[in-house]
Amino acid sequence: MLAAQYVGNKGFQVVEGQMVAPAADEVRLQVGFVGICGTDMHIYHGVMDQRVAPPQIIGHEMSGTIVEMGANVKGFAIGDRVVVRPLDYCGECPACAAGHSHVCHKLKFMGIDSPGAFQNSWTVKARTLHKLPENIDLKQGALIEPLSVAVHDISRARLTAGEKAVVIGGGPIGQLVALVAKSVGAEVMISEVNQVRNEFAQKNGIKTVNPLEQDLDAAVKEWTNGKGADVVFEVSGVKAAIEAMTKIASVRGRICMVAIHSQKPEVDLFQFFWKELELVGARVYEAADFDMAIELVASGKVKLEPFISSVSSLNNIGSAFASMDNNPAGMKALVSCAE
Amino acid sequence: MLAAQYVGNKGFQVVEGQMVAPAADEVRLQVGFVGICGTDMHIYHGVMDQRVAPPQIIGHEMSGTIVEMGANVKGFAIGDRVVVRPLDYCGECPACAAGHSHVCHKLKFMGIDSPGAFQNSWTVKARTLHKLPENIDLKQGALIEPLSVAVHDISRARLTAGEKAVVIGGGPIGQLVALVAKSVGAEVMISEVNQVRNEFAQKNGIKTVNPLEQDLDAAVKEWTNGKGADVVFEVSGVKAAIEAMTKIASVRGRICMVAIHSQKPEVDLFQFFWKELELVGARVYEAADFDMAIELVASGKVKLEPFISSVSSLNNIGSAFASMDNNPAGMKALVSCAE
Ligand SMILES: [Zn+2]
Ligand SMILES: [Zn+2]
Ligand SMILES: [Zn+2]
Ligand SMILES: [Zn+2]
Repeated sequence: MLAAQYVGNKGFQVVEGQMVAPAADEVRLQVGFVGICGTDMHIYHGVMDQRVAPPQIIGHEMSGTIVEMGANVKGFAIGDRVVVRPLDYCGECPACAAGHSHVCHKLKFMGIDSPGAFQNSWTVKARTLHKLPENIDLKQGALIEPLSVAVHDISRARLTAGEKAVVIGGGPIGQLVALVAKSVGAEVMISEVNQVRNEFAQKNGIKTVNPLEQDLDAAVKEWTNGKGADVVFEVSGVKAAIEAMTKIASVRGRICMVAIHSQKPEVDLFQFFWKELELVGARVYEAADFDMAIELVASGKVKLEPFISSVSSLNNIGSAFASMDNNPAGMKALVSCAE
Repeated sequence: MLAAQYVGNKGFQVVEGQMVAPAADEVRLQVGFVGICGTDMHIYHGVMDQRVAPPQIIGHEMSGTIVEMGANVKGFAIGDRVVVRPLDYCGECPACAAGHSHVCHKLKFMGIDSPGAFQNSWTVKARTLHKLPENIDLKQGALIEPLSVAVHDISRARLTAGEKAVVIGGGPIGQLVALVAKSVGAEVMISEVNQVRNEFAQKNGIKTVNPLEQDLDAAVKEWTNGKGADVVFEVSGVKAAIEAMTKIASVRGRICMVAIHSQKPEVDLFQFFWKELELVGARVYEAADFDMAIELVASGKVKLEPFISSVSSLNNIGSAFASMDNNPAGMKALVSCAE
């Protein structure tokens, strides 16, 4: 079997991999498709080498088929088509004890902190699995993980029907957040500087603003009759968004922090007091978010096909990463990992 | 009748005031006691002259007795002892329409944006009134307003029994927040650098930490068995608190922003993502907060007498302000405004 190892400095090598026999609580999957996500691109650029420890098999947005099962695995069968919720938690820390294992104090992210899915065969704990229904194919299945991120964000922001939400940042996660927001009956506007991304959103029926061409605050105020946005999703990770988010939020507006801001930006805390704003952090997903994501796709409420920009073979993983690097407007590149 | 005007630059003049006949929806109060609060001290230091427009009668933490009533006032009678919720809202803006009139887009704060209570007689809209029960005297009544701030903070933070809360800042509001937190069954720790304030808290059965003498983060981790604080109230307004609040909060912890930070401090937004923190702004109070504050005092769950550091006559208002200025550990100075 083949496995693609990230070896550092934008490099991959495809090697003969090690097939891992499943322990009692594990299953071995034949990997179907694996998506390349923003975190994978960060790894590719070398900024996470300390954590990833190359050579390492990365990849965590995946679909696959159960081909081997440990003795204690219940509720699954050989041949089941599944996706993996790639979180490995301790089960004992205060966060796990409080029922928040997805933010476990010792959380290991599979495909970053341990080997990932860019290989023919992946062995994982059965507790990470979610079954795919018949009408979701393995290509769409590979997008259930990022869709679950979006479902989690909507849930953390407590977005409800009739509310108006602004999504700052129109990359794959921002676009998925917008679609999930629509699915709960909210009205959505994406703020994005890349015109190709804005056209992608518009094709999905999402209103867009390019803040380089139009004053975002004014556009939001006009859209909301002076009220401001009920919910703002900060998905861009840029400094200007931090200034914008407190401006465009309504009195009692909720701001959902999806992006990773590691630079401690200056935040207009006065607006939190003055407008009684809320800031809500959102990290990865919980089991229920995967269930909801699968339901949204199975029911046709969210369509994932338009997100798939390309499908490459595992042997060509290096060029798949390189072409994502040169095409920031591309949504989701898949790598086909079946033997 | 007498009225005390703030005239700018730490100055007051006591003048012959204008008794204002109540309009149809108003009442005229004989003022009982008026507390001096942090905002009044800001005004005293001249930093709000633009907004206050001296000479101006300030003061908003008050108790009084109804002595005259407009024709349309219902539910009150001459002789009723009352407190005033000093918010004047428009009733028409999006915030008012959404039921959040306390954060009205055009909110006027009585005693800042319009004449206040440092006078013998004050005429106000009847909709601002809350009746005092027999067992709350007019001195305690003057502290219902700051206690309502604390009640609002607890409610915004959704603090519940069994949770552990840290209050950063042990001034009057911080101490009241701690007492209200205790009243809902939470455990509380105050972080405060002033030893006199810490002793005040300890007398009320509140645990304290002096962050100049002890590592706050370590103290909180020890107190919570490594979990961190379920809720943090930032009441201090100092920069160090912004750094501390994200550190000491638990996974999924809520941080209630009570203090006014107008300098856009640097905030560790990464922690909001990583620990799924929430930041919740809290401003003034709603009608229900006044009702709850009165109930907490009437039932004996919160005792206000220890907060009263001094009672001065209206004629001595200048020295009352001057002595607060020289005694940051003093809790609440009252001015007796009855004729
Ligand atoms: Zn991902
Ligand atoms: Zn854990
Ligand atoms: Zn006050
Ligand atoms: Zn209003």
